[in-house]
Amino acid sequence: MAPQEEKPAAAPVATNEQTLPERPKEEDAAKGPSKSALKKAAKEKEKAEKAAKRKAEEEKQKQQQEANDISKDDYGDLPMLGSEVVKPSGLKRVHLHNLTEQEADQTIVFRATVHNARVQSAKLAFLVLGQRLQTIQAVVAASETLSRQMVKWAGGINAESTVLVHGLVKKPLEPVKSTTISNLEIHIRKIYTIAKAEPQLPMQVEDAERPLPAEGAEAQQQEDDGRPIVKLDTRLNNRTIDLRGMHNQAIFTIKDGVCALFSEYLRDHGFVGVQTPKLIGGASESGASVFEVKYFNQKAFLAQSPQLHKQMLIASRFEKVFEICPVFRAENSNTARHLTEFTGLDLETTFEEDYHEVVELLENLLLHIFKGLKAKYARETALVRSIYHVDEFKLPEAGQVPRLSFAEGVKMLREAGVDVNENDDLSTPDEKFLGKLVLEKYGTDFYVLDQFPLGVRPFYTMPSPQDPTKSNSYDFFMRGQEILSGAQRVHDAEFLKKRMLALDPPVNPEGPGIKEYVDSFRYGCPPHAGAGMGLERIVMLWLGLPNIRLAQLFPRDPNRLAP
Amino acid sequence: MAPQEEKPAAAPVATNEQTLPERPKEEDAAKGPSKSALKKAAKEKEKAEKAAKRKAEEEKQKQQQEANDISKDDYGDLPMLGSEVVKPSGLKRVHLHNLTEQEADQTIVFRATVHNARVQSAKLAFLVLGQRLQTIQAVVAASETLSRQMVKWAGGINAESTVLVHGLVKKPLEPVKSTTISNLEIHIRKIYTIAKAEPQLPMQVEDAERPLPAEGAEAQQQEDDGRPIVKLDTRLNNRTIDLRGMHNQAIFTIKDGVCALFSEYLRDHGFVGVQTPKLIGGASESGASVFEVKYFNQKAFLAQSPQLHKQMLIASRFEKVFEICPVFRAENSNTARHLTEFTGLDLETTFEEDYHEVVELLENLLLHIFKGLKAKYARETALVRSIYHVDEFKLPEAGQVPRLSFAEGVKMLREAGVDVNENDDLSTPDEKFLGKLVLEKYGTDFYVLDQFPLGVRPFYTMPSPQDPTKSNSYDFFMRGQEILSGAQRVHDAEFLKKRMLALDPPVNPEGPGIKEYVDSFRYGCPPHAGAGMGLERIVMLWLGLPNIRLAQLFPRDPNRLAP
Repeated sequence: MAPQEEKPAAAPVATNEQTLPERPKEEDAAKGPSKSALKKAAKEKEKAEKAAKRKAEEEKQKQQQEANDISKDDYGDLPMLGSEVVKPSGLKRVHLHNLTEQEADQTIVFRATVHNARVQSAKLAFLVLGQRLQTIQAVVAASETLSRQMVKWAGGINAESTVLVHGLVKKPLEPVKSTTISNLEIHIRKIYTIAKAEPQLPMQVEDAERPLPAEGAEAQQQEDDGRPIVKLDTRLNNRTIDLRGMHNQAIFTIKDGVCALFSEYLRDHGFVGVQTPKLIGGASESGASVFEVKYFNQKAFLAQSPQLHKQMLIASRFEKVFEICPVFRAENSNTARHLTEFTGLDLETTFEEDYHEVVELLENLLLHIFKGLKAKYARETALVRSIYHVDEFKLPEAGQVPRLSFAEGVKMLREAGVDVNENDDLSTPDEKFLGKLVLEKYGTDFYVLDQFPLGVRPFYTMPSPQDPTKSNSYDFFMRGQEILSGAQRVHDAEFLKKRMLALDPPVNPEGPGIKEYVDSFRYGCPPHAGAGMGLERIVMLWLGLPNIRLAQLFPRDPNRLAP
Repeated sequence: MAPQEEKPAAAPVATNEQTLPERPKEEDAAKGPSKSALKKAAKEKEKAEKAAKRKAEEEKQKQQQEANDISKDDYGDLPMLGSEVVKPSGLKRVHLHNLTEQEADQTIVFRATVHNARVQSAKLAFLVLGQRLQTIQAVVAASETLSRQMVKWAGGINAESTVLVHGLVKKPLEPVKSTTISNLEIHIRKIYTIAKAEPQLPMQVEDAERPLPAEGAEAQQQEDDGRPIVKLDTRLNNRTIDLRGMHNQAIFTIKDGVCALFSEYLRDHGFVGVQTPKLIGGASESGASVFEVKYFNQKAFLAQSPQLHKQMLIASRFEKVFEICPVFRAENSNTARHLTEFTGLDLETTFEEDYHEVVELLENLLLHIFKGLKAKYARETALVRSIYHVDEFKLPEAGQVPRLSFAEGVKMLREAGVDVNENDDLSTPDEKFLGKLVLEKYGTDFYVLDQFPLGVRPFYTMPSPQDPTKSNSYDFFMRGQEILSGAQRVHDAEFLKKRMLALDPPVNPEGPGIKEYVDSFRYGCPPHAGAGMGLERIVMLWLGLPNIRLAQLFPRDPNRLAP
């Protein structure tokens, strides 16, 4: 702003227009000016002339400096890309994660985000430049070929600006500790802003790169070390800044890793990825907890899960199907574990003789995911764990996932002094406690509970032939929290109707969206089982994040629909 | 039904209860029975006794036959799997697609769907058994070790039932023409129903395996060859039967192939798969065509596309993102090209110097998909084409995708005598005609139009620096129909606001869901471009399907929310 204001002020004076102060005379001719007024005017004139002279000299000096600035073409703001016709240079752009010591003493060109920039002295500025999970130190040092003006300009670039850098790769005298790349640094030769960040951001990225304040600590204004406490709400309100945090880049890289490993394993095992409708004519699995949509002249609902349609696909000769898709729950729960929109990892498959074939497939699928994460995302995982300190996720040593019956789980809890009912579902605290007991006994954070009470499972669950109070259903747990729920399904239309009507309140087998589902089992549907997992839950529990919102890019809860 | 009715009728008579006819005497003592009545009663008694005797003999004979049925344990209905405790046999189950002549003369066990079953003679029955894309002929022949009863039973199994078969693999004397596997057949040793289909289905799978009736022909009741015409609505109403058609299995296998090839290519090129919210606080890109959702005490909307959020991720240092997700359009269009819910293949990426870097990436991505489909899904494609006869999809021979400017496209149309305006979008018929002209000139069904008129593109499109009436935007075409739309985006907040306000009507840059989007470009966002594709469009045009609904498992349009 400053240069713009200066120029118009200085310009008319710099023309040496001597008649200017005379003007008031003509306008106030009746009275004539007082002596003191004349004196004041003379003083002001003198002052203005001096100021004008000074400005003119400064301007001249500046122009000279610019003319003399040996680096004047090597820095500055580029016009908005797309606003001018520019012939591409074709210069190869480098990715920092590919940079090795082989590039030492070579000049490279790359685009980066300025994490911070500071002027150390008139001849030296430092910048930290970043690309997603990498940062590197850059030095701008005045020399015969690099001007002090450039040093000053580069050291003053607003943090978060996008810049284009030409620089010499050098091995630093000592390893750089403050950046992820410690064995190399950049000696900047040219630097331009591609997109300038505003000088004041609503929050700082480095504040987002610290753990969420512990519950209760939110009221505090700052951390013990004096830095401001940034509450979850502030982070989520400014999510596009928050997400720039390196741990967030890592979290969502890992999240995609889970999807990739899930799809890869299932396609390799003969599954077909499908897309079932999210807009449905009837409330999907029960009347509760569905969002209502205005659908032209009628009502529609958002699918709570692909449950009914994925089973209809099994009835349609699709032997094995999976889907990764948003699922919607209209539960008015504001906890650290609930979202109104999350990502379902769903699958459904026929089996031959026993639903444990599917349990085994699911165990192997999750082991494939966990092992894949350990092998391919070690760097990302370590990055997140440097902020959210949590124990390494323990996998069963022998490769055999403990598969306990629900009754055995209840027995373990009772032996540890917890009073639980064998026909009720476990409470979250009881689940977590059982997770601890299993970890102690079997040394794993991952295990399976099988044969849940029939009364706590949905109508499409096959009852257990061993015990009519139980069912052929299972949950999978990570660190004592449920991440997967599944079962053998009822594949006979008449028996399914019986099960629906036996519920309290009963489900109407003729209801909208339900009739077609029931009918699809009249045409010879093979026995099948499946599961639904919560992607965000898996990510949260793998990394030990304190809130499920941290595992969703733009989380939705009863109070949050933005950004 | 018949056996149940017979037994109660025969039972009281078969007890030889002699006093029965006497009873009327007591009741009608005043009159007494007439002679003719007595005669009639005696006759009936005699008749009933004869019938009872016959039944008893038949029953005895049947029991003897069953006792003598050497095959009695080798066929029949199995109890519902899950209803009884059964120790798994552990017998290896075979997949027909793995069957080779090496298995000839071996006995295999497999589960299959009965496509049809018929009794040829008292000693011979034929079945066609299927597994997804494979069918095989099976023979049940009476012998010293296989009873006529079993032949009769097997030949009478309802079509669409799921069966378990133990059978000897044999090379047939002549190739079997009616099944996909022609060089092998199954000599059944044991056959059981796992899940019986009802005898009458609302439609036949084989009727679904013929092309949709041509428009106008829907009023006809049957095809020229006498088979019933099954209209699209009937097919979709009974979609779980319709989808059993082998071409439908093929269509959705190919559809998943597109997703797999899309994800694979992008992950290999450094993209991260993401999940953006479908529930948004403001109408996503414009006020029109969004579905409204009751969201607790407020309104939400279903995202028309991930456009705004994927750009916000670019502003959040995610360099390259993609998403496969449902998108929702509340357009009241009942055409063969529109759905209210379809699958978006979306991506967004930074670029270095020129948005054509992204156009090139998109061209290569689609070539990867097309070549992958040709290489990996030849069988599925041929299967669909055997029903919907369409020319092979032509790819550019030299590998260079024709990239025409919109102005060039207009020129080609004008030279061919079509009057089009250079600043309007092309109509669908004009697009199709241009597709034909391009095919003639360049020999490819796949090409790109670049530099669209600015006025027909959304506010986030970067204007063209060459020509202010044009924009840095592009559409991709298959067989003359648009499958992809994309552009360089405006990455500067102030310029974006200017563009929003220049629209008629203007978009409010402070509106719900929009303010956060605009603000995210204040923090230094690199230049970026992207694209959105319609998955169902790609599948429809690759295969030449006559209606987009055929490329969606459970399609949604303004009149269809079920099944």
